[in-house]
Amino acid sequence: MRSEITLGVDIGGTNTVFGFIKENGEYLFSNSIPTHPNEDVYKFINRLTNEIKNIYKEYADKYLLTGIGIAAPSASNFHGTIETPSNINWGKVNFISLLKKHFQIPIAITNDANAAALGEYKFGLGKGLKNFIVITLGTGLGSGIVINGNLLYSEGGLAGEFGHTIVKPNGRLCNCGRKGCLETYASANGIRRTVFDLIARYNEPSELQNISFTQMTGEIINDLALKGDTIAIKAFQYTGKILGKALANLATSFVPEAIILFGGLSGSGELLLKPTRVHFEKNLLSIHKGKVKILKSSIKNGMAAVLGASSLVNKKTNNHAIEINTSSNIEKNN
Amino acid sequence: MRSEITLGVDIGGTNTVFGFIKENGEYLFSNSIPTHPNEDVYKFINRLTNEIKNIYKEYADKYLLTGIGIAAPSASNFHGTIETPSNINWGKVNFISLLKKHFQIPIAITNDANAAALGEYKFGLGKGLKNFIVITLGTGLGSGIVINGNLLYSEGGLAGEFGHTIVKPNGRLCNCGRKGCLETYASANGIRRTVFDLIARYNEPSELQNISFTQMTGEIINDLALKGDTIAIKAFQYTGKILGKALANLATSFVPEAIILFGGLSGSGELLLKPTRVHFEKNLLSIHKGKVKILKSSIKNGMAAVLGASSLVNKKTNNHAIEINTSSNIEKNN
Repeated sequence: MRSEITLGVDIGGTNTVFGFIKENGEYLFSNSIPTHPNEDVYKFINRLTNEIKNIYKEYADKYLLTGIGIAAPSASNFHGTIETPSNINWGKVNFISLLKKHFQIPIAITNDANAAALGEYKFGLGKGLKNFIVITLGTGLGSGIVINGNLLYSEGGLAGEFGHTIVKPNGRLCNCGRKGCLETYASANGIRRTVFDLIARYNEPSELQNISFTQMTGEIINDLALKGDTIAIKAFQYTGKILGKALANLATSFVPEAIILFGGLSGSGELLLKPTRVHFEKNLLSIHKGKVKILKSSIKNGMAAVLGASSLVNKKTNNHAIEINTSSNIEKNN
Repeated sequence: MRSEITLGVDIGGTNTVFGFIKENGEYLFSNSIPTHPNEDVYKFINRLTNEIKNIYKEYADKYLLTGIGIAAPSASNFHGTIETPSNINWGKVNFISLLKKHFQIPIAITNDANAAALGEYKFGLGKGLKNFIVITLGTGLGSGIVINGNLLYSEGGLAGEFGHTIVKPNGRLCNCGRKGCLETYASANGIRRTVFDLIARYNEPSELQNISFTQMTGEIINDLALKGDTIAIKAFQYTGKILGKALANLATSFVPEAIILFGGLSGSGELLLKPTRVHFEKNLLSIHKGKVKILKSSIKNGMAAVLGASSLVNKKTNNHAIEINTSSNIEKNN
């Protein structure tokens, strides 16, 4: 008899990461494909499906794939949809319905930041916490909020969008059409914009001056900051300042036990965490000072959202209280 | 046999309102005393107790007082404390313990905005809603957040303090010691400061120029705005703009079904609600536009917090899910 596995897929603005997960939460295999934000969603699903099926072939004699859990920006778990995400040009699509044409097994979807929060809650730093917030720092900025051990969903099944809190009136233009959203500063794309702003403002020589906007990544800025590049260091300080202040405002209303940073840019660790913590504490109400931890996800290889997504369809671990009714999603979408 | 009644007390920065409430939620009697923010808490409790006992005397032959529920700023329901509220100079006091010296019946306490949220949830516009926010616009600005039908509390039993979200970096000095907090703009005290700022900036004649800062109240500004006073009208527009923007940011993370405004300044109705709604909608993420209602509390005479507080100790209505353990509070504080 074959062992059961589930697939977790984390769709980001830049890369889509996926992993086959055993019932105990261990990885069997993980990989990623680029997302291409301007590609047609049908083409994306074909690429993703081919990749998954090719890999699964090698394991199919020993393992049975029993379900797929998707983490995606602006996803509604109630409707099975992805609804006009800021950083991928798909508009509103019924993603579960499209994927069901390729896989006749249970498929569930949830917001990427909520999936990460679920991953942290089951397998990471969120274990044992009642109130915490996961912030995903990828191409954009997502928020997964756990209150009383439950993920926060709106009536339509959407998660909160803390990344679209306006932190600078008339600030940077956001893909959502508004100006000054937090994610235009605190995200992989945000820090890239900050680097260009700093280059425009200052005269200090920096290796970042040799790299185009298109080619610049959070990793490059990270590596140069570690080598002492002044612009790169300033970019992290500025990002941490904006993020720390915004998190202090969020914590003032929510009073969580911890805020866990996850996603590409969180990989920079103390470079980002240090200024974030300083400006977070500085801007907290005195009764909250020292009470809210800012942590970096401990789940290796940035897999919190993949693990959280896969757990949506894992019969053994799916005992969380969030209202994801996989079967009704499937019925609706068939 | 006497009918059972409970007492609800809503301690504000300016007035303390209280009411004797029958088991079915109807009023028997309500009144108020001034708070005097710089008065010693012991003196305040003596004044409050005398007032309550004098009134209760007249009803004691027909009604039995079975419990007291207190709504106060910065109150912790876990510890029975009021913890350094911004607008009353009591520092941290164990209010239940002090009041128990005068009344040997169950006493519970909660944050004023949470009490108002509880009042709305049981008796007002919050009935049937799962996710909503009550904003109290009194001397300061409080927030009571209901998620999945539960009031949001921190680990220490404190509520969120949305009024201390920083909306203007280096803005008005707040009683909390920081600058630019929302409540320095959107509250009875905030609009008073706005009037003085407008008088300083502009030359337009206004009856508000004849009133001192000490004597100016939200009601006076309200009455003059209704008579067409330009400064008073501008003050409401500015207050609504700041409040609407801040609520849009809050709604972006929480995605509530409704935001209910309560407390003194909300009495101005459309004068405040209209600009608030305009700037709220303008600053919402497109997927949220038109989905979150901004309402004025429907509970008459601004009694939502009194009703909510009284329900904490009402055996018949205290079937809500918030974790207020009256008996353990009492044991702790005796």
